[in-house]
Amino acid sequence: MKILGIEHIGVAVKNISDNAPFWNHILGLNKTGSETVKDQGVKTDIFNTGKGKIELLEALDDTSPIAKYLDRRGPGIHHVCLQVEDITTAIKELKDNNIQTIGDHYTTGSEGYKIIFIHPKTTGGVLVELAEKPEINHEKE
Amino acid sequence: MKILGIEHIGVAVKNISDNAPFWNHILGLNKTGSETVKDQGVKTDIFNTGKGKIELLEALDDTSPIAKYLDRRGPGIHHVCLQVEDITTAIKELKDNNIQTIGDHYTTGSEGYKIIFIHPKTTGGVLVELAEKPEINHEKE
Repeated sequence: MKILGIEHIGVAVKNISDNAPFWNHILGLNKTGSETVKDQGVKTDIFNTGKGKIELLEALDDTSPIAKYLDRRGPGIHHVCLQVEDITTAIKELKDNNIQTIGDHYTTGSEGYKIIFIHPKTTGGVLVELAEKPEINHEKE
Repeated sequence: MKILGIEHIGVAVKNISDNAPFWNHILGLNKTGSETVKDQGVKTDIFNTGKGKIELLEALDDTSPIAKYLDRRGPGIHHVCLQVEDITTAIKELKDNNIQTIGDHYTTGSEGYKIIFIHPKTTGGVLVELAEKPEINHEKE
């Protein structure tokens, strides 16, 4: 597969409004979006570093993967997302190599990206997301 | 401060040789370096994603911060490193804003970068490293 770079880091937070000021005001990163991604059970504030984004992730409800992560591990870096040229090719290569994905097909993530997560047990403990950028501009809510 | 992008993600691993193949052979990332950074108590393999690096971090001994992290949390993403234009300006701004750093001055990290870590308790649980690229090429071992 062809990896194009670190697309973003996902950070699990209890409350976006408590955590955004560090990234925004102390580090001076530009906030480039806010989005609710129902498929993933999260709302997110997105900050651009210039090379890669920081996405703060707050759970929409108790069934959200972020709520479960916070219960188990507390707030912190939840995953790293790598941009791929083609998600379908990437998923096929993962399966061919017996790398376990979470779900068999891509779903839709923030900013309309086509995404899939790789199970941490096959990556050495890291939750890795792969994401293909959508061809057309995704309309933000 | 001026942030220039995500420089790398640091991943705590028990054993680099067990974990490198996922990043190298499955994802197809180029390994761009291997280094022992005694100041930080780690050895590292560095993989370039095209935008930002993945650094696998193995403890040099039991006193290494990575050994302590593995004991407490297990393997996974240890920190995110943001490249800054000027580390001295960045440290001053952090102090002016009562953001707690680990140590008062920068030290030397992998690839000769001037680095400082920000304490997770002032970032919402994320260990954030700031790093200024050295002007001259750092000689690798």
